[in-house]
Amino acid sequence: MSKKASIGVTGLAVMGRNLARNLARHGHTVALHNRSAQRTRDLVEQFGSEGEFIPAYSAQEFVDALERPRQVVIMVKAGAPTDAVIEEFAPLLEKGDVIVDAGNAHFADTRRREAELRERGLHFVGTGVSGGEEGALHGPSIMPGGSPESYESLGPLLEDISAKVDGTPCCAHIGPDGAGHFVKMVHNGIEYADMQLIAESFDLLRGAAGYEPAQIAEVFRTWNTGRLDSYLIEITAQVLAHTDAATGKPFVDVVADQAEQKGTGRWTVQIGLDLGVPISGIAEATFARSLSGHAGLRAAARGLAGPTRAKLTGSEAEKFADDVEQALYASKVVAYAQGFNQIQAGSAEYGWDIDLGQVATIWRDGCIIRAKFLDDIRSAYAAETELPTLLTAGQFRKAVEDAQDAWRSVVGTATRLGIPAPGFATSLAYYDGLRAERLPAALIQGQRDYFGAHTYRRVDREGSFHTQWATDSRPEQPA
Amino acid sequence: MSKKASIGVTGLAVMGRNLARNLARHGHTVALHNRSAQRTRDLVEQFGSEGEFIPAYSAQEFVDALERPRQVVIMVKAGAPTDAVIEEFAPLLEKGDVIVDAGNAHFADTRRREAELRERGLHFVGTGVSGGEEGALHGPSIMPGGSPESYESLGPLLEDISAKVDGTPCCAHIGPDGAGHFVKMVHNGIEYADMQLIAESFDLLRGAAGYEPAQIAEVFRTWNTGRLDSYLIEITAQVLAHTDAATGKPFVDVVADQAEQKGTGRWTVQIGLDLGVPISGIAEATFARSLSGHAGLRAAARGLAGPTRAKLTGSEAEKFADDVEQALYASKVVAYAQGFNQIQAGSAEYGWDIDLGQVATIWRDGCIIRAKFLDDIRSAYAAETELPTLLTAGQFRKAVEDAQDAWRSVVGTATRLGIPAPGFATSLAYYDGLRAERLPAALIQGQRDYFGAHTYRRVDREGSFHTQWATDSRPEQPA
Repeated sequence: MSKKASIGVTGLAVMGRNLARNLARHGHTVALHNRSAQRTRDLVEQFGSEGEFIPAYSAQEFVDALERPRQVVIMVKAGAPTDAVIEEFAPLLEKGDVIVDAGNAHFADTRRREAELRERGLHFVGTGVSGGEEGALHGPSIMPGGSPESYESLGPLLEDISAKVDGTPCCAHIGPDGAGHFVKMVHNGIEYADMQLIAESFDLLRGAAGYEPAQIAEVFRTWNTGRLDSYLIEITAQVLAHTDAATGKPFVDVVADQAEQKGTGRWTVQIGLDLGVPISGIAEATFARSLSGHAGLRAAARGLAGPTRAKLTGSEAEKFADDVEQALYASKVVAYAQGFNQIQAGSAEYGWDIDLGQVATIWRDGCIIRAKFLDDIRSAYAAETELPTLLTAGQFRKAVEDAQDAWRSVVGTATRLGIPAPGFATSLAYYDGLRAERLPAALIQGQRDYFGAHTYRRVDREGSFHTQWATDSRPEQPA
Repeated sequence: MSKKASIGVTGLAVMGRNLARNLARHGHTVALHNRSAQRTRDLVEQFGSEGEFIPAYSAQEFVDALERPRQVVIMVKAGAPTDAVIEEFAPLLEKGDVIVDAGNAHFADTRRREAELRERGLHFVGTGVSGGEEGALHGPSIMPGGSPESYESLGPLLEDISAKVDGTPCCAHIGPDGAGHFVKMVHNGIEYADMQLIAESFDLLRGAAGYEPAQIAEVFRTWNTGRLDSYLIEITAQVLAHTDAATGKPFVDVVADQAEQKGTGRWTVQIGLDLGVPISGIAEATFARSLSGHAGLRAAARGLAGPTRAKLTGSEAEKFADDVEQALYASKVVAYAQGFNQIQAGSAEYGWDIDLGQVATIWRDGCIIRAKFLDDIRSAYAAETELPTLLTAGQFRKAVEDAQDAWRSVVGTATRLGIPAPGFATSLAYYDGLRAERLPAALIQGQRDYFGAHTYRRVDREGSFHTQWATDSRPEQPA
């Protein structure tokens, strides 16, 4: 018998290829398979020297190359292609073998697949992998969901190739069935919110403070040395500092201002709605992208009147830039608070028992939202695992309370000058909504009882009540 | 042969009962059926004098009582109960008969059922019915979707029992299969937004202007004589004017401030996301309800610091109340603009060819969002059927442009005083986003290209481009 591989990767487009190379570079023998043989050959030819690869040119050959329990990583498009590949390999596998879907599947699909394969004696692991192509090669953040047994064999390999923070891997067993893909989905939702808040900061610094992109790049570079230190802030500075070679203009001015999306932000909001978790920051970020893409609508609306913009003076601008940093920080806390609450709600709904501190731990490096900030979140959950919201965790509470004047000032300025800042505005409204002594939801309950006899509860006694609105004289009655 | 019924209603809870009575009062003979016979007997006993009813105590008896083509109105719970009743009756019906689902079905279920029943030679009509119990009895707004043939027999009956505006029925054939339930869903989404905006207006008049509920009821009563004239404003005045008999306190102060929901707002937002339509006003309204219901979270967050509230002086308050009217009007235009754009997008996606002006026409009376305002929307679409957004229609454009200073002032005041106004804030951000010359979405595209090689488009030439961010010196390349 020739040497066997400890893991195999099928689907060798750039993400699959880089994961395979990462595994091989860490000393693991990796079986390779792709629908078209050329990609397999190319990988071995170009990167064969990086480690031990076993190229396979049929599904059977691929499966035969793996040691037991076999671990087959699928890295193909989400949806039907994933189902097709599962159906190609599952009949060739044996009890206890593990199929790993490392693509961006919807967690509901992962739950379905896990249940089906469990029936057939196979483990199915749906894992989030964040960090893009570079991350896949050099160390991503990995969020595997599945049975604890599957993590026994698979975990050490994934931890090996993940990013590390002070030796701690950015990979941990998230929970059963769809837990990993759910957490990855929320990761992406938070990423949408984070990017939108950064974009609004840029827009405000330009539109209100009158800074040029290169100056704003400097502002972000400075912010990146403080509490906002993160990958997204770092690359924002680089994007803003970039000059377009063809025109000599700032890069950001030659790019079409229509943001695209691949769907995970949308999923996050849809599932947040199902779970009844207010994730307005992620929703506004998703809507802002779709609004930007409606070229015809925007063209029609462009002439609508706005306020006259009087730009700020130099010293006002400097103060304003500091205020924006505070607004960005506070809004970011809201985005993460909402996202972590969604994970908490998903975990409760599906019985996943997800450790929120562990999620923060493995997001500290490797993934797109990696940031110093995540270590603070890890600490917050370490101090109080049942934290109702990040906003009330000691350090975040203080930071947000300290920031609130500046936050209000920035939203006020955006409102006054007509610069759209839906992300900042909704985050602040969420903060004010959560801390409100009374909300006008009581009026909504009254309206609902009036037109639909939907009943209401009272502040002073138990039970459901209905008022006979049409015949005003009759007293309120228990419904 | 005894006399036959021109239509039958199965499911005689309050909505079904009132629809049946409404039909009988209009001279139609109505067959009655309910799972438990008692409800059928009760209806005949209590309301038998209102018209001609034929009670039936089995499915077969019910079907036999109907003239051809048979028209069976189902009014039961959405979901599995509806499917069960369809399966009970469909086998007893003949080619060309019509099953009408008048419940609150998801339009996707309606599409599925319509396709299945069409295969079996039956017409299936999914119809929205709005107006609550009273509306069902005295004249609702009715939104039927289904084949044109089914409307030939069914339409005249539904138009008969619908509300009327100057003789025009608040009922029209919306389009094929799920079109009716889709339009009803968006109606409810707009209703959520409208109610949230009214609730914020109340909250601001109280929190900022210091008015008491009875005073605010007066303000709403005055507004109801102007351009805001609508059922929701009218009942808001009544709810706010109401004193709780048990405590002598304003009613709105004894109601628990946790808004409930039955799911159509959530559906609207989820489908809006699928269609890529920014419906942020409806989303914020939905999130505001769910936020209000998170009692534990709110209790934990209640101590978070806010600004000091200096209430407005008497004359400031009066000016503020006028500003709130303008903000409410402008935000309402945004909510309807977003909702109508969603109907437009749904119509395009599913090939329904929905007449938006007709939708406005049949919402003018009978339904919960009935308002003078809807007649203005009808006019706007009559003047320009392909209107890209209500915001640019002549009268709305002028009204919103005239209102924008006040609108900004109200959002600014809410922001400064810490009174959550997510509905007002997102509506204004939408207005400013739509009319923006450039959006920071360009930066988002740059970030996406940086971390995920997602490519971007340029303002000055066609094609997709990717920048080699890691090796900055290489020029941009077509992707």
